Amino acid sequence: MLVVQKFGGSSVADAARVMNVARIVTETYAKGNDVVVVVSAQGDTTDDLIEKAKEINPGASKREMDMLLSAGEQISISLLAMAIEKLGYPVVSLLGWQAGFQTNSKYSAARIKRVNSERISKEIDKKRIVIVAGFQGLNRYDDITTLGRGGSDTSAVAIAASMRADLCQIYTDVEGVYTADPRKIPNAQKLDEITYDEMLELATLGAQVLNNRSVEMAKKYNVELEVISSLTQKPGTKVKEVCKMEKMLIKSVAKDDSVARVSIVGLPDEPGIAFKVFSRVAKAHINVDIILQSVGRDGTKDITFTVPAESGDAAVAALQEYCDQVGAKKILVDTDVAKVSIVGAGMETHEGVASKMFEALMDANINIQMISTSEIKVSVLIDKAEAERAVAAVHAMFFDN
Amino acid sequence: MLVVQKFGGSSVADAARVMNVARIVTETYAKGNDVVVVVSAQGDTTDDLIEKAKEINPGASKREMDMLLSAGEQISISLLAMAIEKLGYPVVSLLGWQAGFQTNSKYSAARIKRVNSERISKEIDKKRIVIVAGFQGLNRYDDITTLGRGGSDTSAVAIAASMRADLCQIYTDVEGVYTADPRKIPNAQKLDEITYDEMLELATLGAQVLNNRSVEMAKKYNVELEVISSLTQKPGTKVKEVCKMEKMLIKSVAKDDSVARVSIVGLPDEPGIAFKVFSRVAKAHINVDIILQSVGRDGTKDITFTVPAESGDAAVAALQEYCDQVGAKKILVDTDVAKVSIVGAGMETHEGVASKMFEALMDANINIQMISTSEIKVSVLIDKAEAERAVAAVHAMFFDN
Repeated sequence: MLVVQKFGGSSVADAARVMNVARIVTETYAKGNDVVVVVSAQGDTTDDLIEKAKEINPGASKREMDMLLSAGEQISISLLAMAIEKLGYPVVSLLGWQAGFQTNSKYSAARIKRVNSERISKEIDKKRIVIVAGFQGLNRYDDITTLGRGGSDTSAVAIAASMRADLCQIYTDVEGVYTADPRKIPNAQKLDEITYDEMLELATLGAQVLNNRSVEMAKKYNVELEVISSLTQKPGTKVKEVCKMEKMLIKSVAKDDSVARVSIVGLPDEPGIAFKVFSRVAKAHINVDIILQSVGRDGTKDITFTVPAESGDAAVAALQEYCDQVGAKKILVDTDVAKVSIVGAGMETHEGVASKMFEALMDANINIQMISTSEIKVSVLIDKAEAERAVAAVHAMFFDN
Repeated sequence: MLVVQKFGGSSVADAARVMNVARIVTETYAKGNDVVVVVSAQGDTTDDLIEKAKEINPGASKREMDMLLSAGEQISISLLAMAIEKLGYPVVSLLGWQAGFQTNSKYSAARIKRVNSERISKEIDKKRIVIVAGFQGLNRYDDITTLGRGGSDTSAVAIAASMRADLCQIYTDVEGVYTADPRKIPNAQKLDEITYDEMLELATLGAQVLNNRSVEMAKKYNVELEVISSLTQKPGTKVKEVCKMEKMLIKSVAKDDSVARVSIVGLPDEPGIAFKVFSRVAKAHINVDIILQSVGRDGTKDITFTVPAESGDAAVAALQEYCDQVGAKKILVDTDVAKVSIVGAGMETHEGVASKMFEALMDANINIQMISTSEIKVSVLIDKAEAERAVAAVHAMFFDN
């Protein structure tokens, strides 16, 4: 069996943790598997390097930032290889370019175009454990690029896809994906399985277990993922195309309290207004989530939408001129809101899932400001102060029996 | 004019020094020169990385050590590039492999086979300042190698040779090559010029201004070197094939007090003994410097030779069995010795240079234990306690007038 294992920066933060990872890897290898390991930079290395750069030039080019930061994984892959050498196993470490990662030229946020896994295959044929630097690749000018946030997850999935690995394990500090945040909801349950689509919705909803790009890629190439803890090594949560547990209506209740609600009051009630508003927001590279449009009593209409909390002011700035021009009454931003969502492929074929959620909120006397639904998700916007109570109420409605 | 400039680890140790280097480089560029800069890892980076490796596996493979340590220059080249960006000049940083450094596969002590400077030329054509990671290259398996001690000097000379640069400046913390160590001999004079051969002898004699491999390569490809201070930027010392100042008999007085004298007493006086002794020493990879053989009164002979101080015990170990076998009386090691040398191409055509040195030592009442001469060098082995006094006396004899 060919297994790809990915370890993040905190898993290799110091010598003891590097040795721990080496043990996990060599145990997998000793069971007769071929193992490719993807590693991020050590926890503090990236921060230290960014600090060094800022001291010299806060406006450094992204090309040189990528050159600098990619040294981080170079350090972690060689240290992990040394730890595995110490345990007496054959091993070789490879940089992104050595492992065949070809990317486009968008420095600091490059996209993987192709993984030429020839070198990795050659090393596996020599019965070596292969350690690959995550987060980095090479563009067509032979310059080093980095993949941006969550890049190492994507690196791992890309290798698994290119080599048709049997399993891609993403090691983290949680034991898997839960029906709700287990630190907040004591009887949250760990899921054995979840579908790609459900995982994608959860990732978008602020449950940052897996990076979205990596789940998208896993779905596209049908790579079986497992989210698993590097500390306990208990079986984690498998992410796959179809799950066996179809009886579960929903998989998880998630909360995102880093949301801003933007309201434009008193827009003229005429065609094309929504386009004019949201094309301006898109131009400012702001992601819009829930949208609500209502007609006011005085022949004007209001548009309300949510954006990431940090983009609230930027959204207002992008719209101010237009609103003045068409005589809108005002633009309001409110960051005292939170989004609570339920996710589950089961709701596609079962009516009443959304109303069950609304019932739970009503019972808890929590007011719903906005509602958004997709085939496998229902989100509501509520007062931020009520968010945790809302999650508990909804979770109890679906999972306590 | 194409200028290659090399800066060592202490020259880029912190943000302020990186900015200082950026100023030197951009001033050279602003005068209309094409500039290629070779940089070592920041002062403390290499030590930190070695520390990290030791904590995990003191017996790590050299292949992985090279992978680890080469991250050091990756950090320093990108930081220097950022500093130059800050000053508003076009710049690009290149790793050893990007700059075309092809080496053999001797990890941690690789030899440069070829520099394919195509990429550097292309960047220079774009009017960019090119920053190259010293000390590192790529072997034919596409694996990263490091060049070992003083490797960055060699990297700089190799680029200068491959691109037929007009000048290769080695920036250091001294102002050039002196007639003696200026910290010890107050009236030591800075030399304007010195020949490759003289520089090679000086390097071997412990005056570690330039790495020997780099001088050898400079001589082979006739690269004009300049040793120059990164702090004062005053004209330094040029190293070239022929010097104008032929009137100077000797160029410098050097001292090496990290020497061991090994003596084998009472060897049989028969043919082949020297071969049998020194082949064993060579097999143990120990460099022998001065050799003295004398016939004892009892029909036996004694062989005395010098080796680096740290190799004294290894030399004894390599010889013990043989000496027991042939019935030698004893092997002695003495590290209380020092080698004082004069170097100068002028002595080739002038008699009496050696005797002038001996005269100075006699006047100072210093006993000579061993003597060794070459065309451009005279070395004497003396008591370590007398070494500084010897250098002062010899320097005064040749340079005070």
